[in-house]
Amino acid sequence: MSRILITGSRGVVGTFLTKMLTERGHSVFGIGKHHAVGEVGWEHPMAKTEFTYARCDVADFRQLERVFEKAGPFDFVYHTAAEFGRWNGEDYYEQVWLTNAVGTKNIIRLQEKLKFKLIHFSSSEVYGDYQDVMKEYVMDFVEIKQMNDYAMSKWVNEMQIKNSTIQHGTETVVVRLFNTYGPGEWYHPYRSVNAKFCYHALHGLPVTVYKGHFRTSTYLEDTCRTLCNIVDNFKPGEAYNIGGTEYHDIEALANVIWKYTGADQKLITYQDSEILTTKSKKLDVSKAIADLDHKLTVSLEEGVKRTIDWMKDYYKLNK
Amino acid sequence: MSRILITGSRGVVGTFLTKMLTERGHSVFGIGKHHAVGEVGWEHPMAKTEFTYARCDVADFRQLERVFEKAGPFDFVYHTAAEFGRWNGEDYYEQVWLTNAVGTKNIIRLQEKLKFKLIHFSSSEVYGDYQDVMKEYVMDFVEIKQMNDYAMSKWVNEMQIKNSTIQHGTETVVVRLFNTYGPGEWYHPYRSVNAKFCYHALHGLPVTVYKGHFRTSTYLEDTCRTLCNIVDNFKPGEAYNIGGTEYHDIEALANVIWKYTGADQKLITYQDSEILTTKSKKLDVSKAIADLDHKLTVSLEEGVKRTIDWMKDYYKLNK
Repeated sequence: MSRILITGSRGVVGTFLTKMLTERGHSVFGIGKHHAVGEVGWEHPMAKTEFTYARCDVADFRQLERVFEKAGPFDFVYHTAAEFGRWNGEDYYEQVWLTNAVGTKNIIRLQEKLKFKLIHFSSSEVYGDYQDVMKEYVMDFVEIKQMNDYAMSKWVNEMQIKNSTIQHGTETVVVRLFNTYGPGEWYHPYRSVNAKFCYHALHGLPVTVYKGHFRTSTYLEDTCRTLCNIVDNFKPGEAYNIGGTEYHDIEALANVIWKYTGADQKLITYQDSEILTTKSKKLDVSKAIADLDHKLTVSLEEGVKRTIDWMKDYYKLNK
Repeated sequence: MSRILITGSRGVVGTFLTKMLTERGHSVFGIGKHHAVGEVGWEHPMAKTEFTYARCDVADFRQLERVFEKAGPFDFVYHTAAEFGRWNGEDYYEQVWLTNAVGTKNIIRLQEKLKFKLIHFSSSEVYGDYQDVMKEYVMDFVEIKQMNDYAMSKWVNEMQIKNSTIQHGTETVVVRLFNTYGPGEWYHPYRSVNAKFCYHALHGLPVTVYKGHFRTSTYLEDTCRTLCNIVDNFKPGEAYNIGGTEYHDIEALANVIWKYTGADQKLITYQDSEILTTKSKKLDVSKAIADLDHKLTVSLEEGVKRTIDWMKDYYKLNK
């Protein structure tokens, strides 16, 4: 059993990951940007129970170092904390560069000293508009220009990690997540397409469907099971695509959601391709299957239904 | 005659550029991070003379927007302001991401609104460890991984600019400077090799010469003349290498400096190649010659002598 730190432990993936790793018997400590129930009070502990969470902004080195000093040491760090999403990155680029570039460098600097094993959360966005099947190694051969600040920050992180490994021998596994969705993904306008469409359908809000944009979708539980497996077969220096294999366009996704919710078809506007966005994301997940026992157990249709059911409950839409 | 804003106008290149563009009859306004003589007092002007400088951190959007509102409009912006140097970037990565990534994005956002022409200062570091002759277009064909955060931030800037041009039609010229040196470059430990070696030789401080590292050097005046020419032949979307053509190793540079200063040979230690540093920088400057009348008028030997003479004076080493 390992001692594990999860950054961004109250995010959508972080929350599920915390639950799953804890259930597997690991000792899990989480950090996040906000105050929360169960949080440790560093100077004035309010209770003597076992704390498993601390407020900490990864972009603030002092706060991060304190977590390692007072709640560590850790064998593994799952670094999920990040400013997420391409339009979020364009609208909130200040936060993106601070949290993603400075925050990850802070983690790497501590890793160089403390020698924990790092699992870094990257994104399918690093592949830019690469048109062929996205295999993990294509960046070693093909020049890719990232199409937005969020994507750039994620690619910067991968290079920061590579350089630290060369110079300091740090041990890191990179996971590139593809469109993960599922219960727990509460709504805001920068969420990925699945959550957005479910919420809009349930609330009678309009959506724009960009034609010719192909994606895969991965159900949160499937993603997290694979992520948990990393500690049992940690191969430093590897990068893994974590994604689905059902290749669908955005229209098909909308159809599933509109059918299950019974929402008004008039809410949907169809448009041609969106600017600076990867049109097609075809990916290869064979490496994750081989090394991490990556399994896809929930179909898009089933996953979307569960997400909608959860959302109805979460937003109290059941009468 | 144009109205020109220079960010980082009190830096080594910025200072010389301000002087040269002013001499050519342009109306030049400068900004920099620090208070200085000649600075405007926004709320309480202390005098009624013509101000040509304001304190402004480009990473702070409010301060930057105020410059454009109160001292603009500008036809051209020379964006020289940046955290500079690869080891500076490793030791002060917080500043690098704020100033370089957020600061440049702030400028781009204002450019999208105000439509000025931007001259963005990039670096030879974006070429990573590319081994062949560095032509401006190699990044369109070859996958390059930048070897330090400073280099990454500079490449991020070039991608931010490209994406803004695609999405908003902004007009920008990118200049990639190669090892510019000369009088005016006061010493700190993160300076480029020419200034560092001159200062160390003059002060009896040791240096390490990495063998097999080849560079070109460009005398500041030659660099700035070419930079000034951009406003007369502004070709949006172009990138230019601005560098020298004399290809010398670091040992040859040390020899010139040690000979002219008469410093002790024992100050020099020879070592094999430095980690995460481009070994050889061979570049092609034919595009800058064709479009910008790039001329190299000062030899390495002559330029180094002038730099040493200036340094002796600046640091009061003449008895």
